[in-house]
Amino acid sequence: MKKLINGTDTLLAESLAGFASAHADLVCLGEESKFIRRKFGSRGKVSLISGGGSGHEPLHSGFVGHGMLDAACPGQVFTSPTPDQMVAAVRSVDGGAGVLLIVKNYEGDVMNFEMAAEMAGGSIAQVLTTDDVAVQDSLFTTGRRGVAGTMIVEKIVGAAAELGMDLPACQALGERVNKATRSMGVALTSCTVPAAGKPTFDIGPDEMEIGVGIHGEPGRRRIKLQPARAIADEMVSAIVGDLGAREPCLLLVNGFGGTPAMELYLMYHNARRIAEQQGVVISRSLVGSFVTSLDMAGCSITLASLDDELTRLWDAPVHTPALRWGM
Amino acid sequence: MKKLINGTDTLLAESLAGFASAHADLVCLGEESKFIRRKFGSRGKVSLISGGGSGHEPLHSGFVGHGMLDAACPGQVFTSPTPDQMVAAVRSVDGGAGVLLIVKNYEGDVMNFEMAAEMAGGSIAQVLTTDDVAVQDSLFTTGRRGVAGTMIVEKIVGAAAELGMDLPACQALGERVNKATRSMGVALTSCTVPAAGKPTFDIGPDEMEIGVGIHGEPGRRRIKLQPARAIADEMVSAIVGDLGAREPCLLLVNGFGGTPAMELYLMYHNARRIAEQQGVVISRSLVGSFVTSLDMAGCSITLASLDDELTRLWDAPVHTPALRWGM
Repeated sequence: MKKLINGTDTLLAESLAGFASAHADLVCLGEESKFIRRKFGSRGKVSLISGGGSGHEPLHSGFVGHGMLDAACPGQVFTSPTPDQMVAAVRSVDGGAGVLLIVKNYEGDVMNFEMAAEMAGGSIAQVLTTDDVAVQDSLFTTGRRGVAGTMIVEKIVGAAAELGMDLPACQALGERVNKATRSMGVALTSCTVPAAGKPTFDIGPDEMEIGVGIHGEPGRRRIKLQPARAIADEMVSAIVGDLGAREPCLLLVNGFGGTPAMELYLMYHNARRIAEQQGVVISRSLVGSFVTSLDMAGCSITLASLDDELTRLWDAPVHTPALRWGM
Repeated sequence: MKKLINGTDTLLAESLAGFASAHADLVCLGEESKFIRRKFGSRGKVSLISGGGSGHEPLHSGFVGHGMLDAACPGQVFTSPTPDQMVAAVRSVDGGAGVLLIVKNYEGDVMNFEMAAEMAGGSIAQVLTTDDVAVQDSLFTTGRRGVAGTMIVEKIVGAAAELGMDLPACQALGERVNKATRSMGVALTSCTVPAAGKPTFDIGPDEMEIGVGIHGEPGRRRIKLQPARAIADEMVSAIVGDLGAREPCLLLVNGFGGTPAMELYLMYHNARRIAEQQGVVISRSLVGSFVTSLDMAGCSITLASLDDELTRLWDAPVHTPALRWGM
């Protein structure tokens, strides 16, 4: 295992310390480093909290800031944060208008966020993200997995909360965005969890995993490496077939951590052409490594159907370490 | 070789097409796809053009936009763009106040930009970047290599040009920033050039290359993998020793393309502590994969000594695909 670390036991703490220090203008470490919170602006609005296992950076800590999250709770690598962390985050950022938890659909996260909501009491609602069309159930999930589409929910609901939307409406909006969003991934290599010290799964030098999860969970099938256009075709077709809607869409091509920008833009080019051939109008675009799987090579494609309201909220100002526009 | 491509012959064209389409609000493809140019705002100011082999994305195309470059000329992977591309870019973006070429110190780039300047005629000046302290001469370079510090030169001179600084002053400023900037890299794995189809260099499963170049050129030494703090110590000490200055510094930790954000922030944490122990005040920070080497795992550390003027120009608004703040 080759990683730039001092030891697996200090990896998360050192990485979080670096993150908080590099972005000290926007965020700070919460009590006992249990969470990352925004430095300003959580009062008087619905507060958004997300979290999950580390290893998917910049999700979620990189999305803490104006127009997106109020706090993020990072667990150990690919391990749910504890209810304790979530309760501390709720108490720290609740600005009086209630708290919305945005939870990716993995059993540990779902259970711990639920427990935290009970423990914290007060006005708390939840949105569960389930955008991965690849498989119905999975290693750590009953139902569909929540993957890259989660950042779209965080961005759009974050903008609405900033504009003063109340908690029930924020929750309903989050569920609407999740329903309008579909993703699918492909892995060329496995990721390596530091504490495990070896690749999560074995994959041949000429193979790829279509429909892989963001923890390296199995997808739909293991096949020989295909040209980018064939990969994009399978993924976009699965997404469009499932999404149904034909409103203008946001197209997100998301790298898994080990994929160069050149390849992501090439995948974007292929995915866009195929989506357009299938009648989808691409009205917004995002390309980069936002919801990663440590060092895995591969990418996911996401389409989110955006009506006028969702488009306005997507375009609204955001100022976080990993996403920034309009201010 | 595992890459998301359709073929090595169409990789660059498809990637550029995707890039231009994903960022159509900011940039467009120039004549015959020879270059990327900004959509607005090159008139009446000094125009900045950079370029070089592809494979280092987002450098340079990702830095085209307000407050940074006016055009970028991408060559094939790790291959200089041709003078023809550069001349076309000069003719397209020269807004009447002259053109500054920002050139990383590699023989092919230097030769071709020089030839282009002669062919294009008119008011053209050049800044050569040479920030890599690792080695004196290298595979493709006489003198020091230009690496991640190049983006700092592009950002600061870009801001000055936007504010109306004239060509001789922009050139002098670029040279001043280059002199105030030092970098060094480390590779854990090799990159794989698509057309070659195999890793550029062999490296053992427990080895790293200290001082590696951004094309995988040899560095100072090949040693056993060390903890992050030892790696950061060697790199920061080499940089600080060479830089001398003790003004407040920008600390840039730059990923080479295959390195997860978690590790980059951990390296930032270690590098910052070591730099501060050596008396350096860190006044600005940047962490991410900005000057990459395809899929290479590893990172570089850069320190740039910023006086008040340079700090103001660093902080000035920038609006490009890969760097965006203040607007």
